[in-house]
Amino acid sequence: MRDVAIIGVGVTKFGELWNKSFRDIGIEAGLKAIADAGLSGSEIDGMFIGNMAAGRFISQKHIDALIADYSGLASNHIPAVRVEAGDASGGVAFRQGVMAVASGMHNIAVVAGAEKMTDMDDANVNLILDQTADAEWEAGMGLTFASLHAMIAQRMIHDGIATREEIASFSVNSHAHGALNPNAQFRKAIPIETVLKSGPVATPLGLFDCAPISDGAAAVVICPLEDAKKYTDSYVKVSAVCQASDTLALFQRDDITSYEATRVAAQNAYRIAGITAKDISVAEVHDNYTVSGIMALQDLGFFERGKAGKAVLDGETRIGGKIAINTSGGLKARGHPIGATGVAQIVEIAEQLRGSADQRQVANAKYGLAQSVGGIGSAVTVSILEAI
Amino acid sequence: MRDVAIIGVGVTKFGELWNKSFRDIGIEAGLKAIADAGLSGSEIDGMFIGNMAAGRFISQKHIDALIADYSGLASNHIPAVRVEAGDASGGVAFRQGVMAVASGMHNIAVVAGAEKMTDMDDANVNLILDQTADAEWEAGMGLTFASLHAMIAQRMIHDGIATREEIASFSVNSHAHGALNPNAQFRKAIPIETVLKSGPVATPLGLFDCAPISDGAAAVVICPLEDAKKYTDSYVKVSAVCQASDTLALFQRDDITSYEATRVAAQNAYRIAGITAKDISVAEVHDNYTVSGIMALQDLGFFERGKAGKAVLDGETRIGGKIAINTSGGLKARGHPIGATGVAQIVEIAEQLRGSADQRQVANAKYGLAQSVGGIGSAVTVSILEAI
Repeated sequence: MRDVAIIGVGVTKFGELWNKSFRDIGIEAGLKAIADAGLSGSEIDGMFIGNMAAGRFISQKHIDALIADYSGLASNHIPAVRVEAGDASGGVAFRQGVMAVASGMHNIAVVAGAEKMTDMDDANVNLILDQTADAEWEAGMGLTFASLHAMIAQRMIHDGIATREEIASFSVNSHAHGALNPNAQFRKAIPIETVLKSGPVATPLGLFDCAPISDGAAAVVICPLEDAKKYTDSYVKVSAVCQASDTLALFQRDDITSYEATRVAAQNAYRIAGITAKDISVAEVHDNYTVSGIMALQDLGFFERGKAGKAVLDGETRIGGKIAINTSGGLKARGHPIGATGVAQIVEIAEQLRGSADQRQVANAKYGLAQSVGGIGSAVTVSILEAI
Repeated sequence: MRDVAIIGVGVTKFGELWNKSFRDIGIEAGLKAIADAGLSGSEIDGMFIGNMAAGRFISQKHIDALIADYSGLASNHIPAVRVEAGDASGGVAFRQGVMAVASGMHNIAVVAGAEKMTDMDDANVNLILDQTADAEWEAGMGLTFASLHAMIAQRMIHDGIATREEIASFSVNSHAHGALNPNAQFRKAIPIETVLKSGPVATPLGLFDCAPISDGAAAVVICPLEDAKKYTDSYVKVSAVCQASDTLALFQRDDITSYEATRVAAQNAYRIAGITAKDISVAEVHDNYTVSGIMALQDLGFFERGKAGKAVLDGETRIGGKIAINTSGGLKARGHPIGATGVAQIVEIAEQLRGSADQRQVANAKYGLAQSVGGIGSAVTVSILEAI
């Protein structure tokens, strides 16, 4: 297998983009990434697209063909592949793209993620999001995605793994960083009281514990590492991209306060990259709910179990702290257009490692990590990027 | 890249399987394929799943996690990937699996396809199928998938490429073969009058020109070719698996009586396999409508443009004829559970090449081909398998 490099990145503004269509944003991110790589587009020989539910949100399936077509690449007849893995759709698409280039079946590929969610009313959007839980034994019984995460939070508080304030502080961290990101959906730092006093969603989680419903797209261009410098001086190495699965339903796990799929994917990724969690300076983790962010910090090995919440509350996860977490604003503040999220994480880490993160720049970062979670921890990708 | 072999195959009965759930059929096909390969299941290190619309048909997204879980493989935390490319979902999943094993990222993978369509009323099923056409410029304007194919048929008749009778004869061919397949949805040979006199769907196409709505699943187990004989004496080589894209909408093509994506994918596949169309003895082509089957025979190079229809009418595509087409019964008679279809084609070709196709067996076949079409020719996969 060949080593793979990221040679270009692109993101749209995330938010309620009512004046743009799915086609507009999908193409915008891809073209930005291609331009960033210094390419014209004709060099691209494959596309891998993460998207969760365009069939529901915009009544369009087969968006692999749509995006290949509207980006002008169908005239070259390039293969395009859409993957869906719930919230991890973008992370899984990135892994498919890396595999395609590593194998030699593709040379220069675009990995993109896109979702247009705000053209549908929120109630129906939430019904669709719940479909990534177990439709027969969870969603079908009335459980929602929010209530599943609330049960995890209740258990963490009950077991003394994190306090309510510590869990809430994850949102404060994300908003502090989102304020620095011009493409974030929410650009306002908030005090912890805003989270604690926000309207209840599923006790103990309030509105500010939950990522918003968003539109947006992100894309990266990848190629063999050995060819990267032909195109740009500003590239990063993909050191590992691992994926692990777990039961679809939460009730089938022995422990609901930790995602074993995160732990397995991370262990494999550290092994392949030849590093440990201590080597990571900057990470994007899947904070669809604050409690997911706290779990991620523990499962990825950044903090011991029971200490992640306090670390966030104490500011150790801010830019300039022990490890910079969700410098983009994370799912909570940057926004969470489902299929785009996993790719947007990769974009942020690549920007950090090549030194183009502007106000959000973390100093001297050698390794960065992105974690993307599908369902309630039933599929997790962990990618490690390395500065060159 | 490593060469890849198919070491096990499995299919469920196709049809209206009202007494089985999506979970039942997805697992049944996978376990059959694993047993056929002589494996226990614990050797599997990756799954690639083609599925078009479980989120609509059974309100369950993230079926990668579902199938990994219910097949007992989530306990090993193996990565599972769902791909969707409209009707070509199974064909694209097969390509992803082959790429994964060829790259060395996976060693033994299951590629499965599954769809459960009959739990929903036909009117809503058809609305979902239309979503693989262009939602804004075709489906959104009232065009259906059937009417798009009817326009192609009208044009072929107008241009003298095929007569109405020749187009209809494709259904006769599929039904003749389906009668020999115990897993086919329809097991009855029909005369051409049945097609010609069937109720109109979209002129000139009638009910018997159209593949049915079906439930079903199919799976194959793949591994590096060099390891295949460790597991079984009955394996086939994957000589090529290629994919090409085209515009999403039909009206954007110069010629609607040929799919350029089929031609490009086939040319690439023949080149990689080092053969020509003349070397293919048996093929499964995507006859979602009779007219698609006729086009496929021309675009794949089996017959010259304008001569495919007559060849089918004359019986040259029957088992024992010049080239055996859709020995499984094809989409028309075997059935068309969308995500399963592309994988079921691979299963049939593998059975033919290893000599386990029973009453449908084609003599002395060295090379077989499967063609899977997404949308209205906007994504096509062409796979070539080789007997060992």
